[in-house]
Amino acid sequence: MKAVSRNPDYRYRVEVCLVPSQFPLYAEDMGIVVVIDVLRATSAMVAAFDRGVERIIPVATVDEARAYIGRPGYIAAAERNGEVVEGFDFGNSPLAFMQEDLSGKTIVMSTTNGTKAIDLARNARKLVIGSFLNLSALCDWLSEQDDNILLLCSGWRDKFNLEDSIFAGAVMDRLLELDKFGVEEDSSIAAQYLFWSARDNFMSLLKAAPRRKRLEQLKLQDDVKFCLTPDQSRVIPELRDGVLMPMEAPSLVK
Amino acid sequence: MKAVSRNPDYRYRVEVCLVPSQFPLYAEDMGIVVVIDVLRATSAMVAAFDRGVERIIPVATVDEARAYIGRPGYIAAAERNGEVVEGFDFGNSPLAFMQEDLSGKTIVMSTTNGTKAIDLARNARKLVIGSFLNLSALCDWLSEQDDNILLLCSGWRDKFNLEDSIFAGAVMDRLLELDKFGVEEDSSIAAQYLFWSARDNFMSLLKAAPRRKRLEQLKLQDDVKFCLTPDQSRVIPELRDGVLMPMEAPSLVK
Repeated sequence: MKAVSRNPDYRYRVEVCLVPSQFPLYAEDMGIVVVIDVLRATSAMVAAFDRGVERIIPVATVDEARAYIGRPGYIAAAERNGEVVEGFDFGNSPLAFMQEDLSGKTIVMSTTNGTKAIDLARNARKLVIGSFLNLSALCDWLSEQDDNILLLCSGWRDKFNLEDSIFAGAVMDRLLELDKFGVEEDSSIAAQYLFWSARDNFMSLLKAAPRRKRLEQLKLQDDVKFCLTPDQSRVIPELRDGVLMPMEAPSLVK
Repeated sequence: MKAVSRNPDYRYRVEVCLVPSQFPLYAEDMGIVVVIDVLRATSAMVAAFDRGVERIIPVATVDEARAYIGRPGYIAAAERNGEVVEGFDFGNSPLAFMQEDLSGKTIVMSTTNGTKAIDLARNARKLVIGSFLNLSALCDWLSEQDDNILLLCSGWRDKFNLEDSIFAGAVMDRLLELDKFGVEEDSSIAAQYLFWSARDNFMSLLKAAPRRKRLEQLKLQDDVKFCLTPDQSRVIPELRDGVLMPMEAPSLVK
Protein backbone atom coordinates (compact mmCIF):
# COMPACT_ATOMS: atom_id res chain seq x y z
CA MET A 1 0.00 0.00 0.00
CA LYS A 2 1.60 3.18 -1.20
CA ALA A 3 1.64 5.66 1.65
CA VAL A 4 -0.07 9.01 1.39
CA SER A 5 2.38 11.89 1.64
CA ARG A 6 2.11 13.24 5.15
CA ASN A 7 4.21 16.42 4.82
CA PRO A 8 4.81 16.58 8.59
CA ASP A 9 5.69 20.26 8.50
CA TYR A 10 2.63 21.36 6.57
CA ARG A 11 1.03 24.73 7.21
CA TYR A 12 -2.41 24.13 5.69
CA ARG A 13 -4.73 21.15 5.54
CA VAL A 14 -6.45 19.69 2.48
CA GLU A 15 -9.32 17.42 3.46
CA VAL A 16 -12.20 15.58 1.82
CA CYS A 17 -15.79 15.48 3.04
CA LEU A 18 -17.36 12.44 1.38
CA VAL A 19 -21.05 13.37 1.74
CA PRO A 20 -22.84 16.69 2.32
CA SER A 21 -24.43 15.70 5.65
CA GLN A 22 -20.93 15.33 7.13
CA PHE A 23 -19.99 18.90 6.17
CA PRO A 24 -20.40 20.32 9.72
CA LEU A 25 -17.90 17.71 11.02
CA TYR A 26 -15.24 18.89 8.56
CA ALA A 27 -16.00 22.58 8.03
CA GLU A 28 -14.20 24.08 11.02
CA ASP A 29 -11.17 26.22 10.09
CA MET A 30 -11.66 25.50 6.40
CA GLY A 31 -11.28 28.81 4.56
CA ILE A 32 -11.73 27.46 1.04
CA VAL A 33 -14.46 25.00 0.09
CA VAL A 34 -14.44 23.29 -3.32
CA VAL A 35 -17.90 21.97 -4.23
CA ILE A 36 -17.77 18.87 -6.43
CA ASP A 37 -20.64 17.30 -8.37
CA VAL A 38 -18.90 15.63 -11.28
CA LEU A 39 -22.12 14.05 -12.67
CA ARG A 40 -23.16 16.67 -13.61
CA ALA A 41 -23.88 20.01 -11.92
CA THR A 42 -20.38 21.37 -11.39
CA SER A 43 -19.23 20.07 -14.80
CA ALA A 44 -22.18 21.88 -16.39
CA MET A 45 -21.31 25.10 -14.54
CA VAL A 46 -17.72 25.10 -15.79
CA ALA A 47 -18.87 24.27 -19.35
CA ALA A 48 -21.48 27.06 -19.30
CA PHE A 49 -18.99 29.71 -18.16
CA ASP A 50 -16.54 28.47 -20.76
CA ARG A 51 -19.19 29.22 -23.38
CA GLY A 52 -19.65 32.78 -22.20
CA VAL A 53 -22.38 32.59 -19.56
CA GLU A 54 -22.02 35.62 -17.31
CA ARG A 55 -23.52 34.42 -14.04
CA ILE A 56 -25.08 31.30 -12.52
CA ILE A 57 -27.48 31.67 -9.64
CA PRO A 58 -27.65 28.33 -7.80
CA VAL A 59 -31.00 27.82 -6.07
CA ALA A 60 -32.04 25.00 -3.76
CA THR A 61 -35.62 24.49 -5.00
CA VAL A 62 -37.19 23.91 -8.40
CA ASP A 63 -39.77 26.63 -7.70
CA GLU A 64 -37.07 29.27 -7.29
CA ALA A 65 -35.70 28.32 -10.72
CA ARG A 66 -39.20 28.18 -12.28
CA ALA A 67 -39.73 31.88 -11.52
CA TYR A 68 -37.11 32.67 -14.18
CA ILE A 69 -38.62 30.68 -17.07
CA GLY A 70 -39.10 32.99 -20.04
CA ARG A 71 -37.47 36.00 -18.38
CA PRO A 72 -35.23 37.84 -20.89
CA GLY A 73 -31.51 37.30 -20.34
CA TYR A 74 -32.15 34.32 -18.02
CA ILE A 75 -31.94 30.58 -18.57
CA ALA A 76 -33.90 28.53 -16.05
CA ALA A 77 -32.41 25.05 -15.44
CA ALA A 78 -33.67 22.33 -13.13
CA GLU A 79 -32.72 18.69 -12.73
CA ARG A 80 -34.08 16.04 -10.39
CA ASN A 81 -33.06 12.35 -10.44
CA GLY A 82 -30.92 12.87 -13.52
CA GLU A 83 -33.72 14.28 -15.69
CA VAL A 84 -34.76 17.76 -16.83
CA VAL A 85 -37.73 18.85 -14.70
CA GLU A 86 -40.98 19.26 -16.65
CA GLY A 87 -41.44 22.77 -17.95
CA PHE A 88 -37.71 23.50 -18.17
CA ASP A 89 -35.53 23.52 -21.31
CA PHE A 90 -32.33 22.79 -19.39
CA GLY A 91 -31.30 20.46 -16.57
CA ASN A 92 -27.70 19.78 -15.57
CA SER A 93 -26.32 18.51 -18.89
CA PRO A 94 -23.08 20.30 -19.82
CA LEU A 95 -23.51 19.31 -23.47
CA ALA A 96 -26.94 20.93 -23.59
CA PHE A 97 -25.47 24.22 -22.36
CA MET A 98 -22.87 24.04 -25.12
CA GLN A 99 -25.34 23.61 -27.96
CA GLU A 100 -26.72 27.14 -27.63
CA ASP A 101 -25.26 30.62 -27.60
CA LEU A 102 -25.54 31.63 -23.99
CA SER A 103 -23.10 34.58 -24.09
CA GLY A 104 -23.85 37.16 -21.45
CA LYS A 105 -26.80 35.23 -20.06
CA THR A 106 -27.60 34.34 -16.44
CA ILE A 107 -28.46 30.73 -15.61
CA VAL A 108 -30.67 30.03 -12.61
CA MET A 109 -30.03 26.40 -11.69
CA SER A 110 -31.41 23.86 -9.24
CA THR A 111 -30.07 20.29 -9.16
CA THR A 112 -30.56 17.18 -7.02
CA ASN A 113 -27.19 17.33 -5.27
CA GLY A 114 -24.77 20.02 -6.46
CA THR A 115 -26.73 23.19 -5.76
CA LYS A 116 -27.67 21.82 -2.33
CA ALA A 117 -24.00 21.35 -1.46
CA ILE A 118 -23.31 24.93 -2.59
CA ASP A 119 -26.11 26.16 -0.35
CA LEU A 120 -24.66 24.20 2.59
CA ALA A 121 -21.21 25.76 2.23
CA ARG A 122 -22.29 29.25 1.16
CA ASN A 123 -20.74 30.91 4.23
CA ALA A 124 -17.21 29.69 3.50
CA ARG A 125 -14.66 32.49 3.14
CA LYS A 126 -14.19 31.30 -0.45
CA LEU A 127 -16.40 28.80 -2.31
CA VAL A 128 -15.27 27.55 -5.72
CA ILE A 129 -16.52 24.94 -8.17
CA GLY A 130 -14.52 21.87 -9.17
CA SER A 131 -14.91 19.26 -11.90
CA PHE A 132 -12.63 17.24 -14.15
CA LEU A 133 -13.19 19.94 -16.79
CA ASN A 134 -11.19 22.50 -14.77
CA LEU A 135 -8.99 20.11 -12.75
CA SER A 136 -5.60 21.61 -13.58
CA ALA A 137 -6.77 25.23 -13.43
CA LEU A 138 -8.33 24.53 -10.03
CA CYS A 139 -5.20 22.80 -8.70
CA ASP A 140 -2.96 25.60 -10.00
CA TRP A 141 -5.07 28.18 -8.20
CA LEU A 142 -5.41 26.13 -4.99
CA SER A 143 -1.62 25.62 -4.94
CA GLU A 144 -1.17 29.38 -4.62
CA GLN A 145 -3.56 29.77 -1.69
CA ASP A 146 -2.48 30.07 1.93
CA ASP A 147 -5.49 28.56 3.63
CA ASN A 148 -7.06 25.25 4.61
CA ILE A 149 -9.02 23.60 1.79
CA LEU A 150 -12.07 21.37 2.07
CA LEU A 151 -13.11 19.29 -0.94
CA LEU A 152 -16.86 18.80 -0.53
CA CYS A 153 -18.36 15.89 -2.47
CA SER A 154 -22.03 16.41 -3.34
CA GLY A 155 -22.71 12.68 -3.48
CA TRP A 156 -26.00 11.23 -4.65
CA ARG A 157 -28.97 12.08 -2.42
CA ASP A 158 -26.49 12.40 0.41
CA LYS A 159 -25.01 8.97 -0.28
CA PHE A 160 -21.33 8.53 -1.08
CA ASN A 161 -20.48 8.40 -4.78
CA LEU A 162 -17.36 7.25 -6.57
CA GLU A 163 -16.88 9.99 -9.15
CA ASP A 164 -16.87 12.90 -6.70
CA SER A 165 -14.55 11.07 -4.29
CA ILE A 166 -12.14 10.09 -7.03
CA PHE A 167 -12.05 13.67 -8.31
CA ALA A 168 -11.33 14.85 -4.74
CA GLY A 169 -8.52 12.29 -4.61
CA ALA A 170 -7.08 13.68 -7.85
CA VAL A 171 -6.94 17.16 -6.31
CA MET A 172 -5.41 15.77 -3.08
CA ASP A 173 -2.79 13.98 -5.13
CA ARG A 174 -1.64 17.23 -6.78
CA LEU A 175 -1.76 19.43 -3.70
CA LEU A 176 0.09 17.01 -1.41
CA GLU A 177 3.08 17.30 -3.73
CA LEU A 178 3.55 20.69 -2.08
CA ASP A 179 5.13 20.67 1.37
CA LYS A 180 2.79 23.36 2.61
CA PHE A 181 -0.28 21.09 2.43
CA GLY A 182 -0.99 18.19 4.79
CA VAL A 183 -3.81 15.82 5.69
CA GLU A 184 -5.40 14.67 8.95
CA GLU A 185 -8.60 12.87 8.01
CA ASP A 186 -9.04 9.23 6.99
CA SER A 187 -11.63 10.31 4.41
CA SER A 188 -8.96 12.34 2.62
CA ILE A 189 -6.58 9.38 2.52
CA ALA A 190 -9.35 7.12 1.22
CA ALA A 191 -10.13 9.56 -1.60
CA GLN A 192 -6.52 9.48 -2.64
CA TYR A 193 -6.43 5.67 -2.66
CA LEU A 194 -9.62 5.60 -4.74
CA PHE A 195 -8.04 8.02 -7.21
CA TRP A 196 -4.97 5.79 -7.46
CA SER A 197 -7.23 2.81 -8.15
CA ALA A 198 -9.02 4.71 -10.93
CA ARG A 199 -6.37 7.03 -12.36
CA ASP A 200 -5.54 5.02 -15.46
CA ASN A 201 -9.07 5.13 -16.72
CA PHE A 202 -11.72 7.42 -15.30
CA MET A 203 -14.39 5.76 -17.42
CA SER A 204 -13.71 2.39 -15.83
CA LEU A 205 -14.92 3.63 -12.48
CA LEU A 206 -18.38 3.95 -13.89
CA LYS A 207 -18.18 0.52 -15.41
CA ALA A 208 -17.82 -0.69 -11.83
CA ALA A 209 -20.60 1.52 -10.57
CA PRO A 210 -24.14 0.16 -10.51
CA ARG A 211 -25.37 3.69 -11.17
CA ARG A 212 -24.04 3.30 -14.70
CA LYS A 213 -27.18 1.34 -15.49
CA ARG A 214 -29.30 4.35 -14.57
CA LEU A 215 -27.13 6.68 -16.65
CA GLU A 216 -27.37 4.32 -19.62
CA GLN A 217 -31.12 4.21 -19.29
CA LEU A 218 -31.19 8.00 -19.38
CA LYS A 219 -28.95 7.93 -22.51
CA LEU A 220 -26.32 10.08 -20.83
CA GLN A 221 -23.16 8.29 -21.98
CA ASP A 222 -21.95 11.30 -24.01
CA ASP A 223 -22.49 13.61 -21.06
CA VAL A 224 -20.67 11.22 -18.74
CA LYS A 225 -17.69 10.89 -21.04
CA PHE A 226 -17.51 14.67 -21.35
CA CYS A 227 -17.71 15.14 -17.56
CA LEU A 228 -14.84 12.69 -16.99
CA THR A 229 -12.48 14.33 -19.51
CA PRO A 230 -9.99 16.50 -17.60
CA ASP A 231 -8.72 19.98 -18.43
CA GLN A 232 -11.14 21.29 -20.99
CA SER A 233 -11.34 24.73 -19.37
CA ARG A 234 -9.36 27.23 -17.28
CA VAL A 235 -12.51 28.71 -15.71
CA ILE A 236 -12.97 28.49 -11.94
CA PRO A 237 -16.46 29.57 -10.89
CA GLU A 238 -16.57 31.21 -7.47
CA LEU A 239 -19.52 32.21 -5.31
CA ARG A 240 -19.89 35.95 -4.62
CA ASP A 241 -22.93 37.09 -2.66
CA GLY A 242 -24.83 33.97 -3.67
CA VAL A 243 -23.97 34.23 -7.36
CA LEU A 244 -21.42 32.14 -9.25
CA MET A 245 -19.02 34.12 -11.47
CA PRO A 246 -15.83 33.13 -13.29
CA MET A 247 -12.87 33.93 -11.07
CA GLU A 248 -10.39 36.46 -12.35
CA ALA A 249 -6.91 35.33 -11.35
CA PRO A 250 -3.50 35.72 -13.03
CA SER A 251 -3.05 31.95 -13.35
CA LEU A 252 -6.34 31.58 -15.22
CA VAL A 253 -5.45 33.36 -18.44
CA LYS A 254 -6.43 31.00 -21.24
CA MET B 1 -8.97 -0.46 -12.35
CA LYS B 2 -10.06 -3.99 -11.55
CA ALA B 3 -13.81 -4.20 -11.80
CA VAL B 4 -15.92 -5.22 -8.85
CA SER B 5 -17.83 -8.42 -9.49
CA ARG B 6 -21.38 -7.42 -10.33
CA ASN B 7 -23.04 -10.85 -10.25
CA PRO B 8 -25.92 -9.61 -12.41
CA ASP B 9 -28.21 -12.45 -11.35
CA TYR B 10 -27.71 -11.99 -7.64
CA ARG B 11 -30.53 -12.69 -5.20
CA TYR B 12 -29.24 -10.76 -2.16
CA ARG B 13 -27.35 -7.51 -1.73
CA VAL B 14 -24.21 -6.92 0.35
CA GLU B 15 -23.68 -3.23 1.00
CA VAL B 16 -21.43 -1.01 3.10
CA CYS B 17 -22.55 1.97 5.17
CA LEU B 18 -19.42 4.05 5.75
CA VAL B 19 -20.58 6.09 8.78
CA PRO B 20 -23.32 5.54 11.36
CA SER B 21 -25.29 8.70 10.54
CA GLN B 22 -25.91 7.32 7.04
CA PHE B 23 -27.45 4.11 8.41
CA PRO B 24 -31.07 5.16 7.69
CA LEU B 25 -30.15 5.68 3.99
CA TYR B 26 -28.89 2.10 3.70
CA ALA B 27 -30.97 0.14 6.22
CA GLU B 28 -34.07 -0.56 4.15
CA ASP B 29 -34.56 -4.24 3.29
CA MET B 30 -31.34 -5.21 5.09
CA GLY B 31 -32.11 -8.27 7.18
CA ILE B 32 -28.61 -8.78 8.56
CA VAL B 33 -26.49 -5.95 9.94
CA VAL B 34 -22.80 -6.52 10.75
CA VAL B 35 -21.51 -3.87 13.18
CA ILE B 36 -17.81 -3.10 12.70
CA ASP B 37 -15.54 -1.16 15.05
CA VAL B 38 -12.11 -2.65 14.37
CA LEU B 39 -10.27 -0.25 16.73
CA ARG B 40 -11.34 -1.55 19.14
CA ALA B 41 -14.87 -2.31 20.42
CA THR B 42 -15.91 -5.17 18.15
CA SER B 43 -12.42 -6.71 18.31
CA ALA B 44 -12.63 -6.60 22.12
CA MET B 45 -16.06 -8.25 22.06
CA VAL B 46 -14.86 -11.18 19.97
CA ALA B 47 -11.73 -11.57 22.14
CA ALA B 48 -13.78 -11.51 25.34
CA PHE B 49 -16.20 -14.19 24.14
CA ASP B 50 -13.26 -16.25 22.95
CA ARG B 51 -11.98 -16.17 26.55
CA GLY B 52 -15.22 -17.46 27.98
CA VAL B 53 -17.28 -14.33 28.67
CA GLU B 54 -20.94 -15.36 28.72
CA ARG B 55 -22.73 -12.15 27.75
CA ILE B 56 -21.94 -8.58 26.76
CA ILE B 57 -24.52 -5.90 27.37
CA PRO B 58 -23.73 -2.94 25.09
CA VAL B 59 -24.95 0.34 26.56
CA ALA B 60 -24.93 3.78 24.96
CA THR B 61 -23.90 5.86 28.00
CA VAL B 62 -21.07 5.68 30.54
CA ASP B 63 -23.57 6.07 33.39
CA GLU B 64 -25.41 2.91 32.37
CA ALA B 65 -22.12 0.99 32.54
CA ARG B 66 -21.12 2.65 35.83
CA ALA B 67 -24.14 1.15 37.59
CA TYR B 68 -22.45 -2.28 37.24
CA ILE B 69 -19.09 -1.43 38.83
CA GLY B 70 -18.41 -3.87 41.68
CA ARG B 71 -21.53 -5.95 41.02
CA PRO B 72 -20.69 -9.70 41.37
CA GLY B 73 -20.47 -11.54 38.05
CA TYR B 74 -20.30 -8.28 36.08
CA ILE B 75 -17.43 -6.43 34.47
CA ALA B 76 -18.10 -2.75 33.79
CA ALA B 77 -16.17 -1.36 30.81
CA ALA B 78 -16.22 2.17 29.41
CA GLU B 79 -14.07 3.91 26.84
CA ARG B 80 -14.17 7.45 25.54
CA ASN B 81 -11.66 8.98 23.12
CA GLY B 82 -9.50 5.86 23.19
CA GLU B 83 -9.02 5.84 26.96
CA VAL B 84 -10.53 3.91 29.87
CA VAL B 85 -13.07 6.18 31.59
CA GLU B 86 -12.08 7.17 35.15
CA GLY B 87 -13.46 4.77 37.74
CA PHE B 88 -13.50 1.79 35.35
CA ASP B 89 -10.99 -1.09 35.22
CA PHE B 90 -11.73 -1.87 31.58
CA GLY B 91 -12.23 0.15 28.39
CA ASN B 92 -12.25 -1.34 24.90
CA SER B 93 -8.83 -3.00 24.87
CA PRO B 94 -9.07 -6.63 23.69
CA LEU B 95 -5.71 -7.45 25.30
CA ALA B 96 -6.94 -6.22 28.68
CA PHE B 97 -9.92 -8.59 28.49
CA MET B 98 -7.53 -11.45 27.78
CA GLN B 99 -5.31 -10.88 30.77
CA GLU B 100 -7.96 -11.94 33.27
CA ASP B 101 -10.15 -14.97 33.75
CA LEU B 102 -13.56 -13.72 32.71
CA SER B 103 -15.24 -17.13 32.27
CA GLY B 104 -18.98 -16.98 32.77
CA LYS B 105 -18.98 -13.25 33.45
CA THR B 106 -21.16 -10.54 31.93
CA ILE B 107 -19.48 -7.43 30.52
CA VAL B 108 -21.45 -4.19 30.42
CA MET B 109 -19.72 -2.01 27.85
CA SER B 110 -19.99 1.54 26.56
CA THR B 111 -17.60 2.84 23.87
CA THR B 112 -17.20 6.01 21.81
CA ASN B 113 -18.35 4.53 18.52
CA GLY B 114 -19.06 0.79 18.50
CA THR B 115 -21.81 0.49 21.08
CA LYS B 116 -23.55 3.51 19.55
CA ALA B 117 -23.63 1.77 16.18
CA ILE B 118 -25.09 -1.35 17.83
CA ASP B 119 -27.78 0.79 19.43
CA LEU B 120 -28.59 2.36 16.06
CA ALA B 121 -29.08 -1.01 14.35
CA ARG B 122 -30.65 -2.88 17.26
CA ASN B 123 -33.93 -3.48 15.41
CA ALA B 124 -32.33 -5.39 12.55
CA ARG B 125 -33.71 -8.91 12.08
CA LYS B 126 -30.21 -10.16 12.87
CA LEU B 127 -27.34 -8.06 14.26
CA VAL B 128 -23.86 -9.61 14.45
CA ILE B 129 -20.39 -8.35 15.37
CA GLY B 130 -17.47 -8.31 12.94
CA SER B 131 -13.73 -7.74 13.32
CA PHE B 132 -10.56 -9.05 11.74
CA LEU B 133 -10.40 -11.52 14.66
CA ASN B 134 -13.44 -13.41 13.36
CA LEU B 135 -13.24 -12.48 9.66
CA SER B 136 -13.34 -16.01 8.19
CA ALA B 137 -15.90 -17.33 10.66
CA LEU B 138 -18.12 -14.34 9.91
CA CYS B 139 -17.76 -14.74 6.13
CA ASP B 140 -18.46 -18.48 6.36
CA TRP B 141 -21.66 -17.82 8.27
CA LEU B 142 -22.75 -14.90 6.07
CA SER B 143 -22.18 -17.05 2.96
CA GLU B 144 -24.84 -19.45 4.19
CA GLN B 145 -27.48 -16.78 4.77
CA ASP B 146 -30.31 -16.00 2.39
CA ASP B 147 -30.83 -12.34 3.16
CA ASN B 148 -29.50 -8.87 2.35
CA ILE B 149 -26.45 -7.92 4.39
CA LEU B 150 -25.41 -4.43 5.52
CA LEU B 151 -21.87 -3.90 6.79
CA LEU B 152 -22.14 -0.95 9.19
CA CYS B 153 -18.88 0.88 9.92
CA SER B 154 -18.83 2.58 13.31
CA GLY B 155 -16.31 5.21 12.19
CA TRP B 156 -14.73 7.70 14.55
CA ARG B 157 -17.21 10.15 16.10
CA ASP B 158 -19.32 9.62 13.05
CA LYS B 159 -16.46 10.40 10.69
CA PHE B 160 -15.31 7.88 8.10
CA ASN B 161 -12.36 5.71 9.16
CA LEU B 162 -10.05 3.52 7.13
CA GLU B 163 -9.86 0.37 9.26
CA ASP B 164 -13.62 -0.24 9.43
CA SER B 165 -14.07 0.46 5.71
CA ILE B 166 -11.18 -1.81 4.74
CA PHE B 167 -12.57 -4.60 6.91
CA ALA B 168 -15.96 -4.14 5.22
CA GLY B 169 -14.17 -4.38 1.87
CA ALA B 170 -12.56 -7.65 2.97
CA VAL B 171 -15.99 -9.12 3.72
CA MET B 172 -17.39 -7.81 0.40
CA ASP B 173 -14.47 -9.40 -1.40
CA ARG B 174 -15.29 -12.85 0.00
CA LEU B 175 -19.05 -12.67 -0.36
CA LEU B 176 -19.05 -11.39 -3.95
CA GLU B 177 -17.28 -14.58 -4.97
CA LEU B 178 -20.71 -16.16 -4.54
CA ASP B 179 -23.18 -15.59 -7.38
CA LYS B 180 -26.03 -15.12 -4.96
CA PHE B 181 -24.66 -11.82 -3.63
CA GLY B 182 -24.56 -8.53 -5.54
CA VAL B 183 -23.89 -4.86 -4.93
CA GLU B 184 -25.71 -1.63 -5.81
CA GLU B 185 -24.05 1.12 -3.77
CA ASP B 186 -20.92 3.11 -4.64
CA SER B 187 -19.87 2.97 -0.97
CA SER B 188 -19.67 -0.81 -1.19
CA ILE B 189 -17.48 -0.65 -4.29
CA ALA B 190 -15.23 1.93 -2.63
CA ALA B 191 -14.76 -0.31 0.42
CA GLN B 192 -13.66 -3.13 -1.83
CA TYR B 193 -11.15 -0.90 -3.65
CA LEU B 194 -9.78 0.28 -0.31
CA PHE B 195 -9.39 -3.35 0.79
CA TRP B 196 -7.51 -4.14 -2.42
CA SER B 197 -5.19 -1.19 -1.77
CA ALA B 198 -4.50 -2.43 1.77
CA ARG B 199 -4.75 -6.20 1.50
CA ASP B 200 -1.04 -6.97 1.43
CA ASN B 201 -0.41 -5.28 4.74
CA PHE B 202 -3.17 -4.28 7.10
CA MET B 203 -0.70 -2.52 9.37
CA SER B 204 0.39 -0.22 6.55
CA LEU B 205 -3.02 1.37 6.42
CA LEU B 206 -2.45 2.80 9.83
CA LYS B 207 0.96 4.03 8.85
CA ALA B 208 -0.87 6.16 6.31
CA ALA B 209 -3.49 7.25 8.82
CA PRO B 210 -2.90 10.42 10.82
CA ARG B 211 -4.80 8.80 13.67
CA ARG B 212 -1.79 6.53 14.20
CA LYS B 213 -0.16 9.41 16.03
CA ARG B 214 -2.97 9.42 18.56
CA LEU B 215 -2.79 5.65 18.99
CA GLU B 216 0.95 5.84 19.51
CA GLN B 217 0.51 8.52 22.13
CA LEU B 218 -1.92 6.26 23.94
CA LYS B 219 0.63 3.39 23.71
CA LEU B 220 -1.84 1.17 21.91
CA GLN B 221 0.43 -0.38 19.27
CA ASP B 222 0.06 -3.91 20.69
CA ASP B 223 -3.71 -3.57 20.76
CA VAL B 224 -3.75 -2.25 17.19
CA LYS B 225 -1.58 -5.09 15.89
CA PHE B 226 -3.83 -7.61 17.65
CA CYS B 227 -6.99 -6.01 16.22
CA LEU B 228 -5.60 -6.17 12.67
CA THR B 229 -4.62 -9.86 12.85
CA PRO B 230 -7.30 -11.91 11.07
CA ASP B 231 -8.85 -15.22 12.08
CA GLN B 232 -7.98 -15.59 15.73
CA SER B 233 -11.47 -16.77 16.68
CA ARG B 234 -14.52 -18.62 15.36
CA VAL B 235 -16.90 -16.72 17.65
CA ILE B 236 -19.63 -14.55 16.12
CA PRO B 237 -21.37 -12.43 18.74
CA GLU B 238 -25.04 -11.79 17.95
CA LEU B 239 -27.55 -9.45 19.60
CA ARG B 240 -30.53 -11.14 21.26
CA ASP B 241 -32.99 -8.93 23.13
CA GLY B 242 -30.34 -6.26 23.63
CA VAL B 243 -27.65 -8.68 24.84
CA LEU B 244 -24.67 -9.98 22.85
CA MET B 245 -24.13 -13.74 23.01
CA PRO B 246 -21.87 -16.08 21.02
CA MET B 247 -23.85 -17.51 18.13
CA GLU B 248 -24.34 -21.23 18.01
CA ALA B 249 -24.09 -22.37 14.41
CA PRO B 250 -22.82 -25.56 12.80
CA SER B 251 -20.07 -23.72 10.91
CA LEU B 252 -18.68 -22.21 14.09
CA VAL B 253 -17.29 -25.34 15.71
CA LYS B 254 -13.71 -24.53 16.70
